[in-house]
Amino acid sequence: MNAGASLRTLRETKPLIHQITNYVVMNETANATLALGALPVMAHSREEVEEMVGWAGALVLNIGTLEPDWVEAMLLAGRAANERGVPVVLDPVGAGATRYRTETAKRILDEIDIEVLRGNAGEVATLVGVAAEVRGVESMSAGSDPADLALAAARSLGVVASVTGAVDHVSDGTSVRAIANGDPLLASITGSGCISSAITGCFLAVAESPFDGATEALVALGVAGEDAARGAKGPGTFHALLYDALAGLDPATIDARARVS
Amino acid sequence: MNAGASLRTLRETKPLIHQITNYVVMNETANATLALGALPVMAHSREEVEEMVGWAGALVLNIGTLEPDWVEAMLLAGRAANERGVPVVLDPVGAGATRYRTETAKRILDEIDIEVLRGNAGEVATLVGVAAEVRGVESMSAGSDPADLALAAARSLGVVASVTGAVDHVSDGTSVRAIANGDPLLASITGSGCISSAITGCFLAVAESPFDGATEALVALGVAGEDAARGAKGPGTFHALLYDALAGLDPATIDARARVS
Amino acid sequence: MNAGASLRTLRETKPLIHQITNYVVMNETANATLALGALPVMAHSREEVEEMVGWAGALVLNIGTLEPDWVEAMLLAGRAANERGVPVVLDPVGAGATRYRTETAKRILDEIDIEVLRGNAGEVATLVGVAAEVRGVESMSAGSDPADLALAAARSLGVVASVTGAVDHVSDGTSVRAIANGDPLLASITGSGCISSAITGCFLAVAESPFDGATEALVALGVAGEDAARGAKGPGTFHALLYDALAGLDPATIDARARVS
Repeated sequence: MNAGASLRTLRETKPLIHQITNYVVMNETANATLALGALPVMAHSREEVEEMVGWAGALVLNIGTLEPDWVEAMLLAGRAANERGVPVVLDPVGAGATRYRTETAKRILDEIDIEVLRGNAGEVATLVGVAAEVRGVESMSAGSDPADLALAAARSLGVVASVTGAVDHVSDGTSVRAIANGDPLLASITGSGCISSAITGCFLAVAESPFDGATEALVALGVAGEDAARGAKGPGTFHALLYDALAGLDPATIDARARVS
Repeated sequence: MNAGASLRTLRETKPLIHQITNYVVMNETANATLALGALPVMAHSREEVEEMVGWAGALVLNIGTLEPDWVEAMLLAGRAANERGVPVVLDPVGAGATRYRTETAKRILDEIDIEVLRGNAGEVATLVGVAAEVRGVESMSAGSDPADLALAAARSLGVVASVTGAVDHVSDGTSVRAIANGDPLLASITGSGCISSAITGCFLAVAESPFDGATEALVALGVAGEDAARGAKGPGTFHALLYDALAGLDPATIDARARVS
Repeated sequence: MNAGASLRTLRETKPLIHQITNYVVMNETANATLALGALPVMAHSREEVEEMVGWAGALVLNIGTLEPDWVEAMLLAGRAANERGVPVVLDPVGAGATRYRTETAKRILDEIDIEVLRGNAGEVATLVGVAAEVRGVESMSAGSDPADLALAAARSLGVVASVTGAVDHVSDGTSVRAIANGDPLLASITGSGCISSAITGCFLAVAESPFDGATEALVALGVAGEDAARGAKGPGTFHALLYDALAGLDPATIDARARVS
């Protein structure tokens, strides 16, 4: 794991990160991608997703405001990404809250080769088949320890599982890394989970492995959250400062600030 | 009316506020809901709206960027909300600007039991049948006094009418409350009306009555607007500070700051 | 060219700017329109676009997250605008990145009388038939000098061509104006191109000619960008300050600050 090296490569090569995501956070994930140093593109039409993903360094699928046409586009884009070796991140927003979300997340996991599944504990627990409470898009409780959950999800779903919360846990099915960076203010803005998925896509485009990329992404967002929190007076000013902090991330110091165990 | 008590309950119980709203303000109303202390969820697909609303403390319908599929989803969600006793807010954005908006707002009022209608004077006047000028989504003039308009709307439409403007007026068809909190900067950002509708949904989930909830919501947004304006240098900084101010609303002092008559 | 006079007229008459644009930037372009002093409306449904554009001072079409229904709505709205003499701006976001975007931009140019085409060098080069590299929605390289490109685009497409970049170039097919206002931070936020198209719509509604309006719009955004950059610590604070700066633009000094040659 070397977040600094990945960040340097990202800013030099400016990979295109194709995102099929929800209406609520599109602006946020585009700005986070851009602030970090990559290039976002939002394209969801079946007429163009397969062509667009051909230019991409990673594809991010997010079901936060899903509807049938968008799900079809996600599947088309995902298959094209798989054929071309473009890594795919899935954010199963609200899985567990409605059958439609749960079934759609499962369908995408079944039909597409997902490199990283990035969700909160309730969403990931739902997909592993563990009892969990999801209120809308918030995880209220998951029936197991998050480290165990990440490991179980990675094993049973054949993905790198990235389970975010107060402390984040990432597993490749063999080991589990806990990432303790971040700030409680991240939970005070909508879309911070979606931003972490977008940033995961950014790092997947340049990291040595999906396990490393998923970890580095959470370190980067966590460190940026710590920097943003210093000047913030609440969720609104934190939100603005978060983009400043992502743009200001220093490859020379980020790994020394990582709290990964 | 006790905004402080409602705000305390809101932050303790964190009700889910299901919003079927427009593309322009989704991020804003989600962040306002979260900053206040409730949980937002945006879900508009016919495949899931009825299930999602079953978890909700309130449903907010907003026709700001309406299209046929979304209108159908609003009707499905509204009927499910009515069956389950979940209160419904309607924001008839742009009623009066096009026939499609006027007719859709009327159709929703006809088919769904709406607890609170929250709009500007031009929109509400249009729905009551009073001559008004609506330019796009802005009220340019309404043909009557806003207090009279709120009373007339509440009576003729069988709702609590919440007519916002420089001074807001809320009526349950018997009496009218004028709320003089707020700041002119609220009118300088897009979606401040939509935010007031979302916050109305938040308070409806916890208030003693729809009349109280609608009033408390406008007090809360108005007081937050006053706080945000103090540090703002224009609409952009005001916008960021508004979320800080919503998160910082103090239940112990909010009622003393209410300017309701 | 008199940006100050146009800005004064804009703030006095508050023209409605009808925008059929992409999901990523709707909030941003609405807030920029409002901060400048005009009234934004987002309406994309075939049920209402023709009626809505009848109230508008300008129509802005932006294909940033295009899909077939939206393209049909753009064509309907564009024809209605042409019939009523409402000026139309086209922002061909991502033309050159996929065939669907390129063909859609060409179709709109063919079927609608476009007053101003506002794009980056790669997008405009694609539409003129010059080799260019577009990565997602970013111009990576265009095969010709931007002043030549603006002139060629204006001539071959029969529009005022507004090609934005580090220095912007606007041409009516006879002469070319270079606008050197702005700040590199404008490129650090998503949607700054889309904002420039929205502001172009605002100025078209009041300017003496499309050539003047397109120029004045880029001066206004550039000067606001310079003001915003002074207080910014990165892309997030810049973004908030940009709306403050648009609202604070001074008609009395803007023309003295214009760097147009």
